[in-house]
Amino acid sequence: MTGGVVTLLTDFGAKDPFVGQMKGVILARHRGATLIDLAHGVSPQDVVEGAFWIERSFAWFPPGTVHVCVVDPGVGGARAAVAIHARDHYFVGPDNGLLAGVARGGVVREIDLGAIGVCAPSRTFHGRDVFAPAAAELARGRPFAEIGPERPLTVGAPLPPPRRRADGVAGVVVSVDRFGNVITNIGRELLPPGALEVRAGDAVLPLLGTYADAAPGADLALVSSYETVEIARRDGDAAAALGLARGDEILVRSRDR
Amino acid sequence: MTGGVVTLLTDFGAKDPFVGQMKGVILARHRGATLIDLAHGVSPQDVVEGAFWIERSFAWFPPGTVHVCVVDPGVGGARAAVAIHARDHYFVGPDNGLLAGVARGGVVREIDLGAIGVCAPSRTFHGRDVFAPAAAELARGRPFAEIGPERPLTVGAPLPPPRRRADGVAGVVVSVDRFGNVITNIGRELLPPGALEVRAGDAVLPLLGTYADAAPGADLALVSSYETVEIARRDGDAAAALGLARGDEILVRSRDR
Amino acid sequence: MTGGVVTLLTDFGAKDPFVGQMKGVILARHRGATLIDLAHGVSPQDVVEGAFWIERSFAWFPPGTVHVCVVDPGVGGARAAVAIHARDHYFVGPDNGLLAGVARGGVVREIDLGAIGVCAPSRTFHGRDVFAPAAAELARGRPFAEIGPERPLTVGAPLPPPRRRADGVAGVVVSVDRFGNVITNIGRELLPPGALEVRAGDAVLPLLGTYADAAPGADLALVSSYETVEIARRDGDAAAALGLARGDEILVRSRDR
Repeated sequence: MTGGVVTLLTDFGAKDPFVGQMKGVILARHRGATLIDLAHGVSPQDVVEGAFWIERSFAWFPPGTVHVCVVDPGVGGARAAVAIHARDHYFVGPDNGLLAGVARGGVVREIDLGAIGVCAPSRTFHGRDVFAPAAAELARGRPFAEIGPERPLTVGAPLPPPRRRADGVAGVVVSVDRFGNVITNIGRELLPPGALEVRAGDAVLPLLGTYADAAPGADLALVSSYETVEIARRDGDAAAALGLARGDEILVRSRDR
Repeated sequence: MTGGVVTLLTDFGAKDPFVGQMKGVILARHRGATLIDLAHGVSPQDVVEGAFWIERSFAWFPPGTVHVCVVDPGVGGARAAVAIHARDHYFVGPDNGLLAGVARGGVVREIDLGAIGVCAPSRTFHGRDVFAPAAAELARGRPFAEIGPERPLTVGAPLPPPRRRADGVAGVVVSVDRFGNVITNIGRELLPPGALEVRAGDAVLPLLGTYADAAPGADLALVSSYETVEIARRDGDAAAALGLARGDEILVRSRDR
Repeated sequence: MTGGVVTLLTDFGAKDPFVGQMKGVILARHRGATLIDLAHGVSPQDVVEGAFWIERSFAWFPPGTVHVCVVDPGVGGARAAVAIHARDHYFVGPDNGLLAGVARGGVVREIDLGAIGVCAPSRTFHGRDVFAPAAAELARGRPFAEIGPERPLTVGAPLPPPRRRADGVAGVVVSVDRFGNVITNIGRELLPPGALEVRAGDAVLPLLGTYADAAPGADLALVSSYETVEIARRDGDAAAALGLARGDEILVRSRDR
C-alpha cells in the first residue's frame, strides 16, 4: 500500500504548464493524492542529473511514496515505460537509465496501457499520458502486480560509478546547484581515511566540514547534503569561479602524499 | 459543487512570494482546498500565452476544479473581475480576453466584492485581493449564483483563430517552451489530410509523428501535446536555431503541391 | 495548536531538489501537513530580502501556520536554530536576522535537536535536517514549549528602518520583482499627507494610485501590494530602465516644496 504521496521529478522547468497538466491527470484519478514537486530543474534531457537526484532524494519521503520521474529524450520512440517497487518506494518513468540506480534489488514491471486504462497516449508527452496515470493508480492503492508484466530494465545506469585509482578516487561533476556549488558523484563511503584534498581542473582544495570552515571568498571541498563530495566557494559561485561544469573529472586524494 | 481543487495560472514567475500570498488567502478561507500550480511562467503580461495555456490545460483536471487565472496588465483600471462556469469547470480572472476561449457556452458573472466579503482590495494585486477570495468561496462550495450578477464578457479572444488560405492553414507562435520547442495555435482538427509540411520563416519542415522520427539534430514539425502544431529540433532548441518567437506566422501546407 | 499548514521560504531557487527533500522530511513526520511554497527566489544568501518577504507575507495565511524560513549563509557555523511563536503564527529558521522582524512581541525558543529526535544533522543543509523536522513537529501538534528552551534572538533586523529626514522619508530597495518593479522598505504608514513624489537615482516620479494611472511606458511610484513604496514603469521594467538595484537609497518627499 502507498500512502497517497506522489512526487514529480522532471526536466520540464518552472515555466510551462506541463507539470500542472500531469497533476491534473493524477487528481482526476485520485482526488486524495498529495502531490509534491521533487524538482523540475533537471538540465534538459540530462538523464545523469535526474538519476543522481532521484537516487539521492527518494529516501527522505515516507515509505510507499510514488515517485514519477520524467527525463525522457526518447519519448515516442522504442524505450519502454516502467514502474518499479524497490526499497519500500515506487518509481515510474522511462527505461532509459534514469531509474537504474533506484531499481537495484527491486521488482520492475513494464506499464500495460490497457491495465491502467490509457487508450491513445500522445507521442510526445508520456509524463502526462502514461506515467501520471500509472502513478495515480499506484497512489490510490492499485496492487503493483496489476500495473503490467514483470521484466528487467534494459538500460543501465547512465554513468559509470566513481573509480578507486592509485592516486585517489575519481568521479565526475553530476550537477551544479543554484548557488554554484559543484556536486560530484563521489560518495562519502568511498573516501579514504585521513586528511583529504580535491583536485578539480587546476585547483586543489582542502576537504573541510562545512562552508563556515573556510574563510569568506575561499574555495573548499566538503561532503554535500547529498552525501557526496562537493566543491564550493564560501559566499560565492564555485562553478563560475573555477570553470567547472557537468561531466568534468574530479579527484579526491590524500593530503599526505 | 466543486471538489476543492484550485489551480493557479499567472505571469508572476517563480521568484517572488505573490503566488504564495494568494495560496495563503485561499487557505484562510478554505482550509481543505487542494492548491495546484498550473503554471506561473506566462511571459509577463502576455494574455495570448495565458489564454492558450488555460484553454489547452483545464480539461486535464477533475470536473468542478476552480482555475484562477491572472495575467492582468490592466489591474487597478476599469477592466472587470469575473467568474465563469463553463464545461463543468470554474474560471476566475480579469475580463481582458484571458478567459474568452474557455467561456464559450458558459455563464459569466461579475465578481461582487461585497458578496465575497472583500472590503478594500489593493489596486495592484487583484490576484490576491479579489480573484483568490472568489476562488476560495467557489472551492468551499458557495453557489456560483452568489458570486455576482450575470453579464457577458466585454473583451474577446486576444488572437484571431488560425485561417484556412488557398496555400494552407496559417497561424502564429503562441509559446516557446523550456526546450525551445515552438508552439503554434494551429489545432490538429484544422490539418488537411495527406502528407504535410510546415513553413516557419525560411525553414520548411516535414510534419512527423514524434521527436524520435527525426534524426538527432534535425528540425521537424509535429502535433504537440497541446494538440496543436509544434516546431522542434530533435535534442536541440528549435526557437534559437530557427530564430522563431511569439507572434511569428506559421503555415501548414500539403507536401504534394 | 496549528492547523497543519507549513509554508517554505528559501533562497534555494526552483532548480534543485532541496525544497523537495525538505517536504519529504515533513511528510515523513506528519502525513497530513499542507505544504505551501511561499517563495524560493530569495536572492542567494540575501537575508534582507528574505526578512522583508516573510514579514510582509505571513499574515495572509491562517492563524497557526508554521513558516519555515531558510536563508542561511552561516549554516554549519555558530548561529543558533530557533522556533518563534508570534502573532498567532510559528516561524522556524536561523537566528541571523531573518526572523527578527516577525519575532517582535513573541516567544523565541532554541531548537533542541534531541527534543525533536534529530541525531546527526548534516553541516550544510539545516533546512532539511533541523528546520523541517522542527516545523513538522509543530504542524502535527507538538506543544511549542517542547521544542527547546526559551531565549532571545541574538541577531537583530538586517536593515535599519526607514528614516524620517528634513527632506522626506528615506529607505532602500529591498527587492526587484519579476516584472522589474522596484520594492522599497518605506511603509505606507510612514508617508506624509499630501501629494508626494519619489526620488530614485536621477529620477523623480509622482506617487500615483496604480499602474493604470500612468501613461503606457511612463515611470511612476505607488504603494505596492506589500504596503510599501514601489517604483514601476507601466508595461515595462523599471529596474532595468532606471538602473535600480537592491540597496539603492530611495527618498519619498512632498511635491509642494
